[in-house]
Amino acid sequence: MESQCAIELKIIVLGCGKIGSVIARDLAESIDNVEIVAADKNKAQASALAKQLKNGTCISLDAGDYRGLVDSLKGFDLAVGALPGNHGFNAIKAAIEAEVNMVDVSFAPESPLILNSEANDAGVTVIPDCGVAPGLSNILVGYAVSKLDRTREVHIMAGGIPEQPIPPLDFILTWSVEGLIDEYMRNPRIIEKGRVVEVPALSGLEEVFFPCIGKLEAFYTDGLRTLLHTMSGVENMWEKTLRYKGHAEKIILLKSLGFFDDAPIVTDNTQIVPRVLTAKLMERSLKGIELGDILAMTVEVAGDSLGEEARLKYIVLDRYDKEKKVTAMARTTGYTASIIARKLVQGAIDHVGVVPPEKLGMDCAFFEDFLSELNNKGVKVEGIST
Amino acid sequence: MESQCAIELKIIVLGCGKIGSVIARDLAESIDNVEIVAADKNKAQASALAKQLKNGTCISLDAGDYRGLVDSLKGFDLAVGALPGNHGFNAIKAAIEAEVNMVDVSFAPESPLILNSEANDAGVTVIPDCGVAPGLSNILVGYAVSKLDRTREVHIMAGGIPEQPIPPLDFILTWSVEGLIDEYMRNPRIIEKGRVVEVPALSGLEEVFFPCIGKLEAFYTDGLRTLLHTMSGVENMWEKTLRYKGHAEKIILLKSLGFFDDAPIVTDNTQIVPRVLTAKLMERSLKGIELGDILAMTVEVAGDSLGEEARLKYIVLDRYDKEKKVTAMARTTGYTASIIARKLVQGAIDHVGVVPPEKLGMDCAFFEDFLSELNNKGVKVEGIST
Repeated sequence: MESQCAIELKIIVLGCGKIGSVIARDLAESIDNVEIVAADKNKAQASALAKQLKNGTCISLDAGDYRGLVDSLKGFDLAVGALPGNHGFNAIKAAIEAEVNMVDVSFAPESPLILNSEANDAGVTVIPDCGVAPGLSNILVGYAVSKLDRTREVHIMAGGIPEQPIPPLDFILTWSVEGLIDEYMRNPRIIEKGRVVEVPALSGLEEVFFPCIGKLEAFYTDGLRTLLHTMSGVENMWEKTLRYKGHAEKIILLKSLGFFDDAPIVTDNTQIVPRVLTAKLMERSLKGIELGDILAMTVEVAGDSLGEEARLKYIVLDRYDKEKKVTAMARTTGYTASIIARKLVQGAIDHVGVVPPEKLGMDCAFFEDFLSELNNKGVKVEGIST
Repeated sequence: MESQCAIELKIIVLGCGKIGSVIARDLAESIDNVEIVAADKNKAQASALAKQLKNGTCISLDAGDYRGLVDSLKGFDLAVGALPGNHGFNAIKAAIEAEVNMVDVSFAPESPLILNSEANDAGVTVIPDCGVAPGLSNILVGYAVSKLDRTREVHIMAGGIPEQPIPPLDFILTWSVEGLIDEYMRNPRIIEKGRVVEVPALSGLEEVFFPCIGKLEAFYTDGLRTLLHTMSGVENMWEKTLRYKGHAEKIILLKSLGFFDDAPIVTDNTQIVPRVLTAKLMERSLKGIELGDILAMTVEVAGDSLGEEARLKYIVLDRYDKEKKVTAMARTTGYTASIIARKLVQGAIDHVGVVPPEKLGMDCAFFEDFLSELNNKGVKVEGIST
């Protein structure tokens, strides 16, 4: 590989799936003199991505091997984590041990905040949950909260859906079916009257009207993440997932019949784990869909400003990029992460430790710059304040 | 076993499940000097039933063994078939070979009419499909058609449902889950403009108002059976299954996702047949239900009588017998069969060959007597003619 200029920055992208690829390509295009190392368990996938990048190389990397992960990360200026959720937390830990800054979109089940003191001690900056929701949603909440004297309500609604509802599930698979089932099974945590409470999965179902789309439905999912811990004083806060109407009812049917159960069912010849079959059948049903996707999100923050009631609302509506064949889900998730990653290596983020994205949003200069860069990528955030 | 009087009649009941038990008990109670032999693959079940009967004995009988079946049937005055559908046709064949009259409720997939010439040659009377629908429905259609000069429309709607809709399926299992799934998968045959056509399973969905119940839904099922062949001249004829609203949509969801597929799905460790798991999960979900059931049926026949348009309608609404713990499904199915069986042994039916129940309904004297006996059992048939 021959490069025109001396490499000044080395970034490793962990995970070369749909999201990792968008991030790697954007970073390679937008940062001068950067070398991007594409890392994946699947060497062919890493290699295919590296070939698309100026100064791109690749390595085979098993994220399940913690020591190997630490060794691979050493010496980089930045790691970007786009691994499956089950490897996310270990990857962040490994980055801290390797003393490498990290921007992560893996949506790991563990709370990244518990690594804050380790990251601080190592002088490392970790920005977790840098996708669309959590991610962009947190940045918008952070900004809005910083504008109010007191915040009472935070309502986030976000969803990736197909351009048109297609039976039977009216859904499109823009990430893993396992992640999707996890999202539907986990009991969401919300803030109610200032306290964290757990509510039943798929509850809180309501009909909502989304501009340019029409009637959708929304139900609680566990998407507040770091916001549960960083927004003290907020009275009520929840995140809901947006879907075409009727989707939740179908998932509730499958769930109540036991089709998502992990406990095996004994039949004459064998034991069957319902969830394993259901994941296969859902994947089969959703894979054939040829439509593009839509990413729809609203963030509403209400409270007091200068003694009066104030309400800030943001609407995001992004669509499949037909030309580049990049889903709206990958665009909004990947560009949020790549812009934050670029700001971090360019020194525009001076926090150390585990820094949730809402903290970045509270910095007005960062916020405006971030939105402008997102806008350049075609991801429009419409703001309404009343 | 000591009996008070000399046995004059010997009846064998094949299958000692819910339906067979109701039939055996009713025959034992209503016919003098009869010996009932309860036959089942499960000897304990046959024995438990026999003990409830005056002059009851039992035998173990494997309906899959055709020769054994023929030998067991020889010498009886009547056989009543209440076996699972897959054994029904062979049992009828065996009765003909053993020269024993038969009343059957097994709902076998094969058409019993093809055995007509065999039965005629043997001088045997076989009355197939003697349940509620097919069965009582056919008798009502037969009577109505005999009253009209010309029949244009025959509409049958029938369903066994719980007293209240209970999520997730709003259904109660009054027969086998395998039979239920078969019913939902098989493409129904109906008469359209005088011709037999096949329509998609679960199609023709409509909302209907049922007296004393409220809003239900109805969709095509393959319940016309012998009526497809015996009602020449009828322009349009169909049978639909009644359920609480929303049931069909749920079954369609499961079906379209592949949960009823017989073809195995390959997973990491094993092959899973979706239908096998789904049957288990549906059974588990429906078995816990403590409610009683309702049997709801309407039969509407329209045509011309004496140069004018005429319409005859019958409504059947039967409920779980709490005292005797007998489901409405078992009552309406079992009593239809037991009354026909009694009439047959008493010489009130003089047809030979395979005699579909609609043929019995065409005999006015039989019809009135039959309805009166059904009424004595508490199964009310309300007739409306306009």
